[in-house]
Amino acid sequence: MHKPLILVSNDDGITSRGIFHLVHVMKELGEVLVVAPNRPQSGMGHAITVGDTLRLTESSIFDGVRAFECSGTPADCVKMARHFVLKDQRQPDVVVSGINHGSNTSISVLYSGTMSAAIEGAIEGTPAIGFSLCDYSHQADFSHTTSFLKKITQQVLKKKLPRGTALNVNFPPRRNEAIKGVRICRQANAKWVEEFDQRFDPNGRSYFWMTGNFVNFDKGEDNDEWAIANNYVSVVPCQFDLTAHQAIRIINEEWDFLK
Amino acid sequence: MHKPLILVSNDDGITSRGIFHLVHVMKELGEVLVVAPNRPQSGMGHAITVGDTLRLTESSIFDGVRAFECSGTPADCVKMARHFVLKDQRQPDVVVSGINHGSNTSISVLYSGTMSAAIEGAIEGTPAIGFSLCDYSHQADFSHTTSFLKKITQQVLKKKLPRGTALNVNFPPRRNEAIKGVRICRQANAKWVEEFDQRFDPNGRSYFWMTGNFVNFDKGEDNDEWAIANNYVSVVPCQFDLTAHQAIRIINEEWDFLK
Repeated sequence: MHKPLILVSNDDGITSRGIFHLVHVMKELGEVLVVAPNRPQSGMGHAITVGDTLRLTESSIFDGVRAFECSGTPADCVKMARHFVLKDQRQPDVVVSGINHGSNTSISVLYSGTMSAAIEGAIEGTPAIGFSLCDYSHQADFSHTTSFLKKITQQVLKKKLPRGTALNVNFPPRRNEAIKGVRICRQANAKWVEEFDQRFDPNGRSYFWMTGNFVNFDKGEDNDEWAIANNYVSVVPCQFDLTAHQAIRIINEEWDFLK
Repeated sequence: MHKPLILVSNDDGITSRGIFHLVHVMKELGEVLVVAPNRPQSGMGHAITVGDTLRLTESSIFDGVRAFECSGTPADCVKMARHFVLKDQRQPDVVVSGINHGSNTSISVLYSGTMSAAIEGAIEGTPAIGFSLCDYSHQADFSHTTSFLKKITQQVLKKKLPRGTALNVNFPPRRNEAIKGVRICRQANAKWVEEFDQRFDPNGRSYFWMTGNFVNFDKGEDNDEWAIANNYVSVVPCQFDLTAHQAIRIINEEWDFLK
């Protein structure tokens, strides 16, 4: 039996600490291939490179691991891994993305480059997981994630995932108390309320920094925000069929000109 | 009773023919505000600008319409419209995005900047619609879309939409036969199979163009691909809760270490 082939990507770029930790742990579980962006791509959502060229360069920064840095987005990286690097070869058994420096809970899943790499895997029919640590510090401690990275990836390799789903896994920041366990959750109902910090450049022209506050409307205990706040690892199975199926009937009944 | 306030954005950029046609039609329905990207942003998915600054410049390219061009993504445009241009003012009654030059049916909804502007509207609780024409030609004829743009937007203004949904509307290309009508659909099960066209620059270094073929696995007649192929306007209600709810139970039952 051959070792599983594990494709690793991320959105913070190939030199980030989060992907180093993830590669280090994945090497214990199988053969690792890295294709990751050559610079930070946070907030890229499910962007792909259209109308522009892509570069792909082999990298030796991971000891004993075949790795490439790509000029494109996280979704581009997964596409290039499958359809160029591994073209006509054995395809990955799992796609893992991260570990993101910062939370991807709740609505942030939409803006997340980390999750777009995982969802791209799911579109191709490969079990896929995005990992994020709810700690924005550059010095963030990843050590408490190790055992869960292994357990979750091993379960996905063993049990696979329902077709068309990818896991959005978030880890609470390292606290004094040990992580309580893993919760399989739904995406919390929350959003960002933006503010635009207007400043003026040396030429007197205005520019803006987008800032914002995260507002959680969700009172439930079955969502990812609750899990993280209560020191659990949150696991949200995500799908790429965006159809609001129940709305089809409502619109068919309500719209005048369809009758 | 005041006229409805209609926020218009897109992903092809503020000078594209599609947004001109949309603005022209929307002026008949209400007061229009345009905030759109200052350059093409196709394939941007739900990207937002993180770790970089934004510019916003007033524009007079639309006759009698207040308009701004923004250096950011379509999602950034909607955020800046709401939280800067309209800060502490009356908010839009509807967000419309497009008309995209090219199809956003099926899986393309994930990669679509057009739809990210609409979904951003839905996140804010505003009824929202993304319009796309399934014709990539720069000379594409938009005239057959006019009556449907009006009818669909009027229905959304009158009936609203179920909370948390945005409409993904695609128009068939202009054919000899008139459009047969409007179908409320689900997202077709299809995907892109990419190929990477490798070339070499004058320095002998390789670069790539991503190309691909659209492969439709869906045999149903209730999906957007079927509607377009059969000369209907497709309307897919989309949601931003990505949770695969049925997978929560499956994973809870299957994973060994959760028991």
